[in-house]
Amino acid sequence: MLRKAGIVITGTEASAIEAADLGLGNFEQVGLGVLVYVNTERCCAKELALWPRQSFPEHRHPPVSATNPGKEETFRCRWGLVYLYVPGPETPRPRARPPEGCEGTYTVRHEVVLRPGDQYTLPPDTLHWFQAGPKGAVVSEFSTTSLDEKDIFTDPEIRRITKVVGRRNRPHRCRRPRP
Amino acid sequence: MLRKAGIVITGTEASAIEAADLGLGNFEQVGLGVLVYVNTERCCAKELALWPRQSFPEHRHPPVSATNPGKEETFRCRWGLVYLYVPGPETPRPRARPPEGCEGTYTVRHEVVLRPGDQYTLPPDTLHWFQAGPKGAVVSEFSTTSLDEKDIFTDPEIRRITKVVGRRNRPHRCRRPRP
Repeated sequence: MLRKAGIVITGTEASAIEAADLGLGNFEQVGLGVLVYVNTERCCAKELALWPRQSFPEHRHPPVSATNPGKEETFRCRWGLVYLYVPGPETPRPRARPPEGCEGTYTVRHEVVLRPGDQYTLPPDTLHWFQAGPKGAVVSEFSTTSLDEKDIFTDPEIRRITKVVGRRNRPHRCRRPRP
Repeated sequence: MLRKAGIVITGTEASAIEAADLGLGNFEQVGLGVLVYVNTERCCAKELALWPRQSFPEHRHPPVSATNPGKEETFRCRWGLVYLYVPGPETPRPRARPPEGCEGTYTVRHEVVLRPGDQYTLPPDTLHWFQAGPKGAVVSEFSTTSLDEKDIFTDPEIRRITKVVGRRNRPHRCRRPRP
């Protein structure tokens, strides 16, 4: 997908691409591919790649210290199409839907459509989730330091960084919201 | 050049590309094209484009406050070829030369060659200059906040941000180093 987007990476980088399934064992529907270019104590840049209609679940980047109010990030669509959901008025006819059964943990419903060349900057500690369009998406992320282990997902079953020991070997199913 | 590099930008962004000639009036030889995607109080991302053999003069990003030790930046070559010069052992047969007559203000001579997919991270306050290869170059820059007006160029005649009033209307010529 990076190749389709015209993005050149080295062989070493190709081997370093992470398929982040969030420990859910349901990668084709929930997760993303990520290549971290740089992540220092001050800033970070990555490429993200999503399969068609693959979702990345709702989460936020909370304050981590007196001097770090949480990760600030800009998503820039490079290829394909991505639907980003953020706090704000609910979009009446959204173009993406949370994965079936997970609706209760996808709470922000204001839609931002990002086509190639479009970008959106998220302030720290802002709930967001996103889903690729029908062909998938490649998205550059420019941000302050990534501290994935600090991310807070709305679904309490999700941890961005999972211990191998605790890794699920069965697909995750969101609990259906109570009737 | 961005198009050649497979980088999609919006029409608004195309109009916002800056041809930074550093007030030298010699853009084809010294300067670069720059499109700033985002520059917040915490981080910054840009695309840089250089003509064939165009140079960007030696400078550094000094500390600006007790909490900001200066800009940290990563250059990632996307297209073409760029020769980056940084402190370190002088490279014996460098592939780029400072613009003629300007040799005295290009003092760091350790060469780093960046081809598409290659990148290099510069700590704050590090002298550096760079030049595109024979076809030009497109380079992504991921960094902490850009405060161009704080940059210190080795050539005391250069200011990154020039007042229109003080803008030269004749080509800049570096003073020849004394014999």
